Amino acid sequence: MKVLVINAGSSSLKYQLYNMTDESVLAKGRVERIGMDSSILVHEPTGGEEYNTVSEILDHTIAIRRVLESLTDAKHGVMQSVDEIDAVGHRVVQGAESFKESVLVDKDVKKEIRRLFDLAPLHNPAHIMGIEAVELNMPDVPQVVVFDTAFHQTMPEKAYLYAIPKVLYKKHKVRRYGFHGTSHYYVSLAAAEYLKRPLKELKVITCHIGNGGSLTAVKDGISVDTSMGMTPLEGLIMGTRSGDLDPAIVPYVMNKEELSIGEVNFMLNKHSGLMAISGSSSDMREITDAMAEGDANSTLAFEMFEYRLRKYIGSYVAAMDGVDVIVFTAGIGENSAIVREKVCENLTYLGVKLDPELNKIRSGDPRRISTPDSKVEVLVVPTNEELVIARDTYKLIQK
Amino acid sequence: MKVLVINAGSSSLKYQLYNMTDESVLAKGRVERIGMDSSILVHEPTGGEEYNTVSEILDHTIAIRRVLESLTDAKHGVMQSVDEIDAVGHRVVQGAESFKESVLVDKDVKKEIRRLFDLAPLHNPAHIMGIEAVELNMPDVPQVVVFDTAFHQTMPEKAYLYAIPKVLYKKHKVRRYGFHGTSHYYVSLAAAEYLKRPLKELKVITCHIGNGGSLTAVKDGISVDTSMGMTPLEGLIMGTRSGDLDPAIVPYVMNKEELSIGEVNFMLNKHSGLMAISGSSSDMREITDAMAEGDANSTLAFEMFEYRLRKYIGSYVAAMDGVDVIVFTAGIGENSAIVREKVCENLTYLGVKLDPELNKIRSGDPRRISTPDSKVEVLVVPTNEELVIARDTYKLIQK
Repeated sequence: MKVLVINAGSSSLKYQLYNMTDESVLAKGRVERIGMDSSILVHEPTGGEEYNTVSEILDHTIAIRRVLESLTDAKHGVMQSVDEIDAVGHRVVQGAESFKESVLVDKDVKKEIRRLFDLAPLHNPAHIMGIEAVELNMPDVPQVVVFDTAFHQTMPEKAYLYAIPKVLYKKHKVRRYGFHGTSHYYVSLAAAEYLKRPLKELKVITCHIGNGGSLTAVKDGISVDTSMGMTPLEGLIMGTRSGDLDPAIVPYVMNKEELSIGEVNFMLNKHSGLMAISGSSSDMREITDAMAEGDANSTLAFEMFEYRLRKYIGSYVAAMDGVDVIVFTAGIGENSAIVREKVCENLTYLGVKLDPELNKIRSGDPRRISTPDSKVEVLVVPTNEELVIARDTYKLIQK
Repeated sequence: MKVLVINAGSSSLKYQLYNMTDESVLAKGRVERIGMDSSILVHEPTGGEEYNTVSEILDHTIAIRRVLESLTDAKHGVMQSVDEIDAVGHRVVQGAESFKESVLVDKDVKKEIRRLFDLAPLHNPAHIMGIEAVELNMPDVPQVVVFDTAFHQTMPEKAYLYAIPKVLYKKHKVRRYGFHGTSHYYVSLAAAEYLKRPLKELKVITCHIGNGGSLTAVKDGISVDTSMGMTPLEGLIMGTRSGDLDPAIVPYVMNKEELSIGEVNFMLNKHSGLMAISGSSSDMREITDAMAEGDANSTLAFEMFEYRLRKYIGSYVAAMDGVDVIVFTAGIGENSAIVREKVCENLTYLGVKLDPELNKIRSGDPRRISTPDSKVEVLVVPTNEELVIARDTYKLIQK
């Protein structure tokens, strides 16, 4: 039983092929620069050598064809025939209130994902391209869509509504959706498993911090609040996204700089965040390196990032009236010991105690980084959204 | 020694006359509908009867003249002659980075307040009208300006900068200023005095919640963070203001509803908040009354309000790594026992314990509402911004 997981962007496409018998990854890779000159396919069979090809890949349909060719290639392939793929699972960013869980793709599902284009103009159209490209290449293979927003559909009204005229919610679907749901779900569950305690009895704060970042408060096993909002712009300071702002700044800046709606969106999503403050990089590794060398702007960017993150943790502790477990995941969460250290350094009021040696260890496995007498368990749990997509896909085609 | 305190709005003006010998209020009152038909002056001599007059008050200069007439009126007045007023103190909303403390008014100060019109287009022009109206009526009396923003000028960079291109800070002064500073300063100091402990050794969270609302984290005696931002729109859910939003909602709604910059500002400041959610009132008293009668929308408005407030408290506890005192003040903070009860109900992780009987008491004095074994002192401290203005004015004219 093999499942192919696809994450389609507007000009890129990532994939992983799973053997569901043991949940092992047979191969993974990515296509970049779809529709541009010299598109690149990077294919990596598990245990084998990485294999790059540069060619013209005009659209997603051709990209999927190349992926399937790589997977069945005599030299670099990992299976005999495309027929061995039993199902394809797709990541979809925005499912809004229409999708509270993963579903098999049919005409109505595609129609609904299209209806949500407005809420995710950069993502949902690309996902539809990915789905239809698979349809054209493998017309008989069932497909499943797994939504970044689904895990957060359990949030109560008081957490997902904004205090603005209700017509905007009814007419234009303006509310908090939250994203990275698949990751928050995975790491909260993995944390409970690691601790050998039922997730339903834990108050967990999951910090998914990568180039984009969000926190989720998980109580009774469900998401009760999350820091991203109607879009992925709200919340933490991110690589190039501002996160939270006085909303009045948006019209103020539009007026002062004569910016259009598109321009102000672009500025807040692409030219803000760590990049804007450090003035040199959106990458936390480069920022902490520059900080170590005494760069003032990078130090400020780090401090603002850490401070916002810590305040969010504090607010979610208040939201749940307590916390049992804090989980760090994704690029920065899994790899930046100094971010974890500085955040926890100022959470002594919760009884958080980090073990500095455990915090330094790098590993691909879930691990505890708090001391035995810490009142809150602090864990690093590598995320695995693809595995959740593969599992959901596998589960749905069994029915 | 008498000091007149003025709070000038665009079409209204409030005043209080202080005897600085004992800091007693001799009279207070307000002028409403300046420049409109049937302007109203309400004058209230301390211990005497309230006295209302309706007349045509075309501008702030005439409004000040009427106030001075009332203060010296044979029947309702509290002094013989206007000459008894030694100084006038004005509330000014926005002092930005130009004013870190109260100052005597001179030509340069007026010029600087004018230079800040852009940052407080509704307030600073009215304050200048108030100052010049006093000049015309009492040309030889010294005037002092006291800024809502001054107390917050101690915030560190990481708290006052937004993660947006730095040119917006340098060129257009986009940063967090915070407001209600005079109130946060007053109640944090009054709380420390009540507790007979030095403010410099306390971590205090002051919750100024009225029709507008903001929280401040006060550490080492100074403001280290506050919830209002560049404008009073950011932060808590207020009577008609949205508070925090995904910033991407602003351009999204402008596009969907074809709103201008002015219209979207108006919507977020005047048609949002408790009013938008309850659908019936921006007044917490009416909302809690309707909630008691089972009104679902009012209940939701209350819950959203309480939840946002509680999360801010939690975030400021994390900002300071702990809290010793939580202070409630202003209209809702001083009078709504149920808001205080519900917020504290879910702060048990901090060891907060409210005494339900103490919480119900209504009084004009600072009072403790937490139990003796509560790990955090919870106080209600009636605010008095006018007294701070009178004191600062008195102090500055002594020099």
